[in-house]
Amino acid sequence: MAVAELCLFPLGTKTPSVGKYLEPVLEVIRTSGLKYKLCPMGTVVEGSVEEILDLVKACHEAIFRAGAERVVISLRIDDRTDKPLTIEGKMRV
Amino acid sequence: MAVAELCLFPLGTKTPSVGKYLEPVLEVIRTSGLKYKLCPMGTVVEGSVEEILDLVKACHEAIFRAGAERVVISLRIDDRTDKPLTIEGKMRV
Amino acid sequence: MAVAELCLFPLGTKTPSVGKYLEPVLEVIRTSGLKYKLCPMGTVVEGSVEEILDLVKACHEAIFRAGAERVVISLRIDDRTDKPLTIEGKMRV
Amino acid sequence: MAVAELCLFPLGTKTPSVGKYLEPVLEVIRTSGLKYKLCPMGTVVEGSVEEILDLVKACHEAIFRAGAERVVISLRIDDRTDKPLTIEGKMRV
Repeated sequence: MAVAELCLFPLGTKTPSVGKYLEPVLEVIRTSGLKYKLCPMGTVVEGSVEEILDLVKACHEAIFRAGAERVVISLRIDDRTDKPLTIEGKMRV
Repeated sequence: MAVAELCLFPLGTKTPSVGKYLEPVLEVIRTSGLKYKLCPMGTVVEGSVEEILDLVKACHEAIFRAGAERVVISLRIDDRTDKPLTIEGKMRV
Repeated sequence: MAVAELCLFPLGTKTPSVGKYLEPVLEVIRTSGLKYKLCPMGTVVEGSVEEILDLVKACHEAIFRAGAERVVISLRIDDRTDKPLTIEGKMRV
Repeated sequence: MAVAELCLFPLGTKTPSVGKYLEPVLEVIRTSGLKYKLCPMGTVVEGSVEEILDLVKACHEAIFRAGAERVVISLRIDDRTDKPLTIEGKMRV
């Protein structure tokens, strides 16, 4: 399993508060079946790299469906083959 | 078309020079058919979000095939629906 | 106050487990006086941009003191002037 | 010398085109005295970590002076002690 952090920033919204664009994205994450953890600067998910990239695609679609005209998506994946990686395991470091 | 920057950092390599792990990743990007530009802090590619995410998957496989035991992948995608985005267009800003 | 996420990745560490390089960095964050929250993919801190950048400098020094030969530091700052930003506030979104 | 990539994203700007907020930031970089290279997804600079962090502070001030109400700043620094790092050197990898 890989662990990844995902953040989306809609640009060109009328106001600096962008929660209404992010709510449908969170709904996609919540219903994805992947383990996830909301953090102050993004959402952390646990899954195979394929599952994580599929989730990024679904979040990208969701934010445009929510009315965004431009989005910056930031993703950072941590993956290793020598031992298991989990959200909980990474909290212990 | 979206524009994205991709960087991979293998961790736990014997020396701080990681070029031998990145060379096979660059070969994957070169032969992907996507427009790309090498930059000092990562490689920038142009394509649909689906094409970009498929490329990330292929790069992830390539770096482990090259012998990495752990990798951090950083991806930032810029996409907009109101006007076309290209690598050249973004150089003009 | 701004909120920022900070992650450091030492490269060339012989093994993929890098906790011994990060422990002194966490000690710097813990004793900085800034509010912070450990997250799976990095540590989130709250402070002025000046305080956050001073902390980055101290963490950079700490990881080299811990024996790292190369480090990639990733920092993302969110700051706004229209309303207060806090770690707790951002958890609610 | 360290090499770093810096990107600023103003949020809540009414339109998705944000060049007018970034132009004053580029002016700060151009007049900083640091070596720099404009790239499609951000600007790469070369300097000591202290110089780079000072530049981030100046860019942060510049984008708010340009009228932004909220900004996300993304910074990634690569630094090593075992051999010199330069913008040109990193282009060769």
